[in-house]
Amino acid sequence: MQSTSAPGKPITTFDITTAQAQHVLMAAMEKARAINTKMDIAVVDAGGNLKAFIRMDGAWLGSVDIAQRKARTARYFDMPTGDIGKLSQPGGPLYNIEHSNNGLITFPGGIPLKSADGTVIGAIGVSGSSVDKDHAVAEAGVKALSEAVTQGSGQM
Amino acid sequence: MQSTSAPGKPITTFDITTAQAQHVLMAAMEKARAINTKMDIAVVDAGGNLKAFIRMDGAWLGSVDIAQRKARTARYFDMPTGDIGKLSQPGGPLYNIEHSNNGLITFPGGIPLKSADGTVIGAIGVSGSSVDKDHAVAEAGVKALSEAVTQGSGQM
Amino acid sequence: MQSTSAPGKPITTFDITTAQAQHVLMAAMEKARAINTKMDIAVVDAGGNLKAFIRMDGAWLGSVDIAQRKARTARYFDMPTGDIGKLSQPGGPLYNIEHSNNGLITFPGGIPLKSADGTVIGAIGVSGSSVDKDHAVAEAGVKALSEAVTQGSGQM
Amino acid sequence: MQSTSAPGKPITTFDITTAQAQHVLMAAMEKARAINTKMDIAVVDAGGNLKAFIRMDGAWLGSVDIAQRKARTARYFDMPTGDIGKLSQPGGPLYNIEHSNNGLITFPGGIPLKSADGTVIGAIGVSGSSVDKDHAVAEAGVKALSEAVTQGSGQM
Repeated sequence: MQSTSAPGKPITTFDITTAQAQHVLMAAMEKARAINTKMDIAVVDAGGNLKAFIRMDGAWLGSVDIAQRKARTARYFDMPTGDIGKLSQPGGPLYNIEHSNNGLITFPGGIPLKSADGTVIGAIGVSGSSVDKDHAVAEAGVKALSEAVTQGSGQM
Repeated sequence: MQSTSAPGKPITTFDITTAQAQHVLMAAMEKARAINTKMDIAVVDAGGNLKAFIRMDGAWLGSVDIAQRKARTARYFDMPTGDIGKLSQPGGPLYNIEHSNNGLITFPGGIPLKSADGTVIGAIGVSGSSVDKDHAVAEAGVKALSEAVTQGSGQM
Repeated sequence: MQSTSAPGKPITTFDITTAQAQHVLMAAMEKARAINTKMDIAVVDAGGNLKAFIRMDGAWLGSVDIAQRKARTARYFDMPTGDIGKLSQPGGPLYNIEHSNNGLITFPGGIPLKSADGTVIGAIGVSGSSVDKDHAVAEAGVKALSEAVTQGSGQM
Repeated sequence: MQSTSAPGKPITTFDITTAQAQHVLMAAMEKARAINTKMDIAVVDAGGNLKAFIRMDGAWLGSVDIAQRKARTARYFDMPTGDIGKLSQPGGPLYNIEHSNNGLITFPGGIPLKSADGTVIGAIGVSGSSVDKDHAVAEAGVKALSEAVTQGSGQM
């Protein structure tokens, strides 16, 4: 195997913390309440593995799985899930990409989470209402993390 | 962390009984015979777990699984399966949602089951004929439970 | 067909709330820190569906799945996972029960969660260290809920 | 392909009816109540496909799957599940046979169901208590069918 860099040096990278994941969940849950919805909310880390999850009382049981798939899908391709869904339609360039990775969800509600320098450190996935509201709640989680990392804090 | 309610109080809720599930199965089976069809009929509880199932003589083997998935799908999102199918078409907001939850079925034949106060206590799923007939048989099960809970009794 | 009860009456029961699930997670995480471990902690509801999850920084990735399976296993049989493991050994009455339910985990770390009247309203599953420590952390979550439901309150 | 019989003649065989499956379930449920247990009870047909299922109020959620696996296992090998479990232990001739067929259950509670001439027409699987009680309840179902087929009836 060949490599452009010396094998002695690993990648220096960033990953989401438990405190950040909780901060994101709480901000998303607050938004969900503000718009009168009941959501399932998942946060995955940089490796796409579940970091934190919460289901609000009365939220759809089927969204337990969908929220996690949205978060994974957003991290797997480092873009909002809805952007992938535009490309996966019949005739589109990524037609039926949902069959990969043991099942992707490509409608809105999943968004990458980033550190201050723009590195993707995880993703949030939200499910439980219309896709517009799912996306709005996910954005509230993204915004809360963005403000926290910009300020260099992120208190729970 | 903040929470809107104290952790001391659980949710008080309802769940379907074995007697109710059997009542639903029998009413659905009677309807299936009345319209000259052979059906697989499943009932799940409030948690989406199988409560009762019956396959009529000669009914499709492939419908054993579909009836159960319809019932789960209806409970997972608290709406008739056909309503989800309208949203999951190409170009629709929930395109390919069927890839979630280890496989959803989103054509008609699954309907939530409710207590007298409207709480969803489970769901029925029917498969074995055209989707219109599947839905009609599911509705017969829903109607039988509705009459039983309204009257507070109902002999089997 | 006969039935012991009229189909008009559903079961009245209890289920865990989001606030309770968070309360359990926080108490378990505090215990995990007190004994210097890093844990994955899951809470499922009365139906065995995921309600809340947290992975502490540096906790094993493989425990994301194990914590959830422990919680489900504890709810599926309403007993601590370790009790099942004693019966599933070679020569035991439940040998290889782990092959059921898409994979059970039967070593310690999963414990049912109960309301004040003893109704099982969910379960906690903990994974990330030795099974003794996993169980101790799960017990801390159980104890926190027990105190909260006994007092009918309990601030988070 | 070669065959010892002419290809023009299919096998003449027997299969369990819906009425028989219900008769078995009801007899098993009556036995379960008589010995003060709460059971999940499944009946599969000659092809190993689910024919009928019932979960008694309060019965273990984890037994939904186990009851069905016991019934399938009993039909797959035309013998009581416990007989297979004796052979699947470490050092035994069928060690870890549970890995086959997407997961077998080989402890007691599953028994074949037969027509009057001894043809296996399905199986019953029971789960929800000790394996001795599971087996006793399964036997009650077997006995009820045996009496019905001997008498040439099997009324619901």
